[in-house]
Amino acid sequence: MAAVFGGVEGGGTHSKVVLVSADGKILAETEGPSTNHWLVGVDRCIEVINDMVQRAKIQAGIDPDLPLPSLGMSLSGGEQKEATDKVMAQMKEQFPTLSQHYCITTDAIGAIATASDCGGIVLISGTGSNCKLVNSDGSQMGCGGWGHMMGDEGSAYWVSHLAVKTVFDAKDNFVPPPHDVAFVKQAMEEYFQVSSLMEMLPQLYRNFQKSHFAGFCKKLAEGAEAGDALCKHIFTQTGRILAKHVEAVLPSAEESLLRSERGLPVLCEGSVWKSWELLKAGFTEVLEELASSPRFRGRFLGYSLMFLQQSSALGGACIGAKGIGAAIKMNFKDNVKVFYQHTF
Amino acid sequence: MAAVFGGVEGGGTHSKVVLVSADGKILAETEGPSTNHWLVGVDRCIEVINDMVQRAKIQAGIDPDLPLPSLGMSLSGGEQKEATDKVMAQMKEQFPTLSQHYCITTDAIGAIATASDCGGIVLISGTGSNCKLVNSDGSQMGCGGWGHMMGDEGSAYWVSHLAVKTVFDAKDNFVPPPHDVAFVKQAMEEYFQVSSLMEMLPQLYRNFQKSHFAGFCKKLAEGAEAGDALCKHIFTQTGRILAKHVEAVLPSAEESLLRSERGLPVLCEGSVWKSWELLKAGFTEVLEELASSPRFRGRFLGYSLMFLQQSSALGGACIGAKGIGAAIKMNFKDNVKVFYQHTF
Repeated sequence: MAAVFGGVEGGGTHSKVVLVSADGKILAETEGPSTNHWLVGVDRCIEVINDMVQRAKIQAGIDPDLPLPSLGMSLSGGEQKEATDKVMAQMKEQFPTLSQHYCITTDAIGAIATASDCGGIVLISGTGSNCKLVNSDGSQMGCGGWGHMMGDEGSAYWVSHLAVKTVFDAKDNFVPPPHDVAFVKQAMEEYFQVSSLMEMLPQLYRNFQKSHFAGFCKKLAEGAEAGDALCKHIFTQTGRILAKHVEAVLPSAEESLLRSERGLPVLCEGSVWKSWELLKAGFTEVLEELASSPRFRGRFLGYSLMFLQQSSALGGACIGAKGIGAAIKMNFKDNVKVFYQHTF
Repeated sequence: MAAVFGGVEGGGTHSKVVLVSADGKILAETEGPSTNHWLVGVDRCIEVINDMVQRAKIQAGIDPDLPLPSLGMSLSGGEQKEATDKVMAQMKEQFPTLSQHYCITTDAIGAIATASDCGGIVLISGTGSNCKLVNSDGSQMGCGGWGHMMGDEGSAYWVSHLAVKTVFDAKDNFVPPPHDVAFVKQAMEEYFQVSSLMEMLPQLYRNFQKSHFAGFCKKLAEGAEAGDALCKHIFTQTGRILAKHVEAVLPSAEESLLRSERGLPVLCEGSVWKSWELLKAGFTEVLEELASSPRFRGRFLGYSLMFLQQSSALGGACIGAKGIGAAIKMNFKDNVKVFYQHTF
């Protein structure tokens, strides 16, 4: 039988496994719950992975008692070597028929490996935000990802917070709002079911739920689409600050990424990107300024914003195969959808 | 027996009662735990107050079964009329010998009434921050006081957060620090007992304790005093943003407050004011700009920053007496200590 490589995408809420042949064909796909070992513990993490892989083997018509040659895992929470070494050691011991070799990388590296073999940037703006640059040699530089208490700039949480804070500051005469707050105030009262700023306090403290707070972002996107000036302004600011993440990691990019023919690949993940048209003015402006700065003029030639069309489990499988000297033929163009491209 | 008026200072951590004669002599003082009814509940709140007042009566040699003519309560959490009406109704019913008349105001109004009979501003910068303007007619305007999720600008929490955020942003190359972060980074590692930014995360989320986080402010004040440029910069910014609270409420001040002979009274509360020398440059600069703005030029003539030397229970007693048409002779100069005065 030809070699079948395994890949895992491990997220904070759900996970995925793919089995791939050397020619890049996906033979099986299975899903499971969270495998972030910081959230669910190492025991649970490896049980879920084992279960998904064994189900995938059966789906692909492979004997589940035959170990895969390699299993490449792209895990959220896969940053610290000490912790991931522990996960792999325990897997080998507990599930000897799972795979012969293991490899764990971060979710960012797995995502990039799904989109390109030359590296790129992952820019996440969902409930929270995060940015990672990955070079072709595997070296990385990150910006953000520290959670809402330390920023989460450009995320849905941040958008909601900026809007609510603008209403509070206007009421307090503390910071004059850039535009009338009437629409945002009413949308806030409706979404959070409050009739005064005082009533917002339980939502911010005792009953704080980040995902619910961040959900207000969707209402603001609707407001912006309907033409409200403050909502539009907030999304322009969001575009700006997301681009500032790219600016933060760009000095660590290798030259070939900057000069890449189709432009620096920027993988965009998270639901805020659904509002790209609202982010566009701010985002493109910051990168325009950056490209014309003395440091990057003539070196940073363009960029492509894209969504992944495949699970980053595929990139994981690819990295896992590389780890044992094998290779999976990847058709990167099919794995992504470019939604914006710019050449300076 | 001459009339003896009661006053209560009700705080979030401790409370105080004073009994005062019409000529302003303090006849008894007692203390107790929190009487913030939002925190401890109405039952507990009125029990603690009754206990403090009855002990004070005995201390002053008054028959505890004789109700006071009035009890004026300056309570943190005393904003909402509906809630304070409930507190007073329950007091009357449950403790008929406590007092004949009751009156509840906010802690800000009680503090101002202790310092002046012409109104003024209370500017709190402790763990959190808050600002209230009180006019001589009792009308109010507030700025801030919404807690750390919605600002707390200029508070010890805010100072600590600004310092930590500057370190994170410098590491991420997200925002260039205005000065070298080496001292602040080391102080952070020592104070929070961490060796990396990643290790800060439990302190910001799972194990977050606002008062402990805010306690880092003291280390930063020490750093500023020892000459660290970033610490000094942070405290200058803190002075600026505290003054911005004054700027926010000033348009609601009655003319007589602005033109007051000794300058607009600003009562400063909270431990961050211990670092006044570090705040001074930023604070005075903002008010200087404000006084020379078209709106306030020739109208805002000066200001006095002062600490209370007496419990705001005294101001509470004063307001309570006024409520029954009586008066307590107050020697306001003895109740405050002016630590900075400026005439434009």
